[in-house]
Amino acid sequence: MTDSTHYFDWAATAPADADILREALDFSLEHWGNPSSIHGAGTDAREALESCRKDAAKVLGVPPQSVYFTSGGTESDQLPLLSVLNRPQKGSVMLSQIEHPANREMAKSLAACGWNIIEVKADRNGMVTADAVAAALRDDCVFVSVMAVNNETGAIQPIYEIADALADRGRQGRKPFFHVDCVQAAGKIELDLAHKGIDSAAFSAHKIRGPRGIGLLYAAKPFTPFLRGGGQEKGLRSGTENLFGAKAFALALQNYYIRKDKPESLERFTTQREWTKEFIRELKGIKGVRILPYAREDEANEGSYSPWVVQAAFPGIPGQVMERALSADGFYISTGSACSSGSHARPILDGRGITAAEKEGAVRFSFGSETTREAMQELLAEVKSVAGKFLN
Amino acid sequence: MTDSTHYFDWAATAPADADILREALDFSLEHWGNPSSIHGAGTDAREALESCRKDAAKVLGVPPQSVYFTSGGTESDQLPLLSVLNRPQKGSVMLSQIEHPANREMAKSLAACGWNIIEVKADRNGMVTADAVAAALRDDCVFVSVMAVNNETGAIQPIYEIADALADRGRQGRKPFFHVDCVQAAGKIELDLAHKGIDSAAFSAHKIRGPRGIGLLYAAKPFTPFLRGGGQEKGLRSGTENLFGAKAFALALQNYYIRKDKPESLERFTTQREWTKEFIRELKGIKGVRILPYAREDEANEGSYSPWVVQAAFPGIPGQVMERALSADGFYISTGSACSSGSHARPILDGRGITAAEKEGAVRFSFGSETTREAMQELLAEVKSVAGKFLN
Repeated sequence: MTDSTHYFDWAATAPADADILREALDFSLEHWGNPSSIHGAGTDAREALESCRKDAAKVLGVPPQSVYFTSGGTESDQLPLLSVLNRPQKGSVMLSQIEHPANREMAKSLAACGWNIIEVKADRNGMVTADAVAAALRDDCVFVSVMAVNNETGAIQPIYEIADALADRGRQGRKPFFHVDCVQAAGKIELDLAHKGIDSAAFSAHKIRGPRGIGLLYAAKPFTPFLRGGGQEKGLRSGTENLFGAKAFALALQNYYIRKDKPESLERFTTQREWTKEFIRELKGIKGVRILPYAREDEANEGSYSPWVVQAAFPGIPGQVMERALSADGFYISTGSACSSGSHARPILDGRGITAAEKEGAVRFSFGSETTREAMQELLAEVKSVAGKFLN
Repeated sequence: MTDSTHYFDWAATAPADADILREALDFSLEHWGNPSSIHGAGTDAREALESCRKDAAKVLGVPPQSVYFTSGGTESDQLPLLSVLNRPQKGSVMLSQIEHPANREMAKSLAACGWNIIEVKADRNGMVTADAVAAALRDDCVFVSVMAVNNETGAIQPIYEIADALADRGRQGRKPFFHVDCVQAAGKIELDLAHKGIDSAAFSAHKIRGPRGIGLLYAAKPFTPFLRGGGQEKGLRSGTENLFGAKAFALALQNYYIRKDKPESLERFTTQREWTKEFIRELKGIKGVRILPYAREDEANEGSYSPWVVQAAFPGIPGQVMERALSADGFYISTGSACSSGSHARPILDGRGITAAEKEGAVRFSFGSETTREAMQELLAEVKSVAGKFLN
């Protein structure tokens, strides 16, 4: 068992809640049938699955029929995007520059099929503004995807303003479908999925202490899927339903999703906000360190960033060197998205005035429900020690 | 907990092996990192994942680098099929009439994208012959899919002869990619994945006592995927890896896959062969019953069918009525694929001389590792009792 006391890579994966997983496993062993079977073992599993859907929907504040279980964040991001392939006429889809590879890479396949991909840039502060989205829109644009919280910078995107801007557009003609990747937002900030104009949203259980291999797609209205098969999840996601995953995800949401009717979840958020401010203050004291985006060096801007993610650059120390040096001492951070850890491209850092040395030296610290102030202090001491060795 | 003593729908799902799932859960809680992370928690999870791959590959008799974990049988069937969309020039794909909806329904989306779908029929005995495949081939056909064991009839398909026929074709020009859906074959009959000409094969854990939500794709050589994202599984299947599922699937294969080097697995098969012969003999004694395909009424043909699946028709008793009547007494059978239980179309029964009354009255009995001869006898008594009420 790897110790998670000094784990600061919660944005890559959250150590699973063992109690939740064990409860979900018992539940799934009890309801062992195929939910599509019409005999007793099937209807028993079907009812169990629907209870998970209802529980998850209640936490998310949406109707149960708008909740679909998938195999993870990637699939939840791709199901709505792929549905454009059902259209007889090709057009454009718009993705922000800071989307996850689940969308960005998938779009390359769509481009090969004749679709035009519009990339909307983030500004210097890491924000994809509603104005930028509106300016980049074309009449043939049928799909827009902007994530709620960026996985590398923690920048909280103005998704409600973007939804409103797209709804405005809809009053003049066709409103593009608006998808929001909430993988890094769930359990990290408050969300209002019911906001008008948000058509779908993607979630992943393992980012919120559930298991790997289960995701959730919110879809305000059913849409025609491109991937088709046995027709499970009302045709939207085929494949025998993962009851262990569904139960564990519902439990993880009940325990860790941030919502108004659960004051302790808001309190934990506020506490993290204070700890992270303090963390950034200390980090800025290290010689040569830059907080990314630079705007975050001014504490007045902190409300625009998730307190659970801090990106910083140690110019002169490559990010991977810092990551490995910390790992050797049992402190786990990352240089960015685990999903692109094998790649040297850093699209999220592009075009924001960030120097090449800062890109090379960028690392991500990310926190979660079990992170303690004491552990963050120990991390700071360790980072100072490693930086000291390299920078002196 | 629904009792599984009188569960005869193992082709829909196999009741999971609780010991396997608990062991896999402990393993996954121990190796909790994201396998793509490069720090210690990540490399620990990566090594754990690769050990599962190695174990699974060893049982399957293929190299570890040819094994990819997916979210289930549906995805394992679709990844190779979807890859045709990467081709700049459209052509044909060939699916047998008896493929699972994961392929048949998916092909409808491909057709909408301009691909030609060739359907190759099964003969009266439920077999897709190599001759039929060869006769239906066209020069622009780049992909052929024929399943190893049909999920409704139990007909064992001549996949090696088909592979050979396609390899012959390759010597004259381009060999189409050959995919074999092994979802109903794994743990049911011996398989030789290494047979030349088989390019990929799909597996699902929950059919072999593993959990729902994990699948496996064998691919003799890597291919370019259409679905792209974070690049996990060497780019072939994006999404954070499901370590619980991978471990459970590897354990399920070790325990329940039929292979020459595990004599008890062959013995269990031989035993089931005898029990099923006896079962069919008794079933034939019920007035009006037909075994489907008819060829199976002659015991000499039994070697061409999986002993784990028996399809029969009770003309005059709709299949769903039989299923519900048995379910009321705690006996669980099905009318066919759970994945199409909501649908009235029965493509697998089409074109084989089967009467409309027989189609309407068709049911499927399917068995598994925990099935006992005694329970099969009890099932027969129950079926006779229900049939007696309706047929007299």
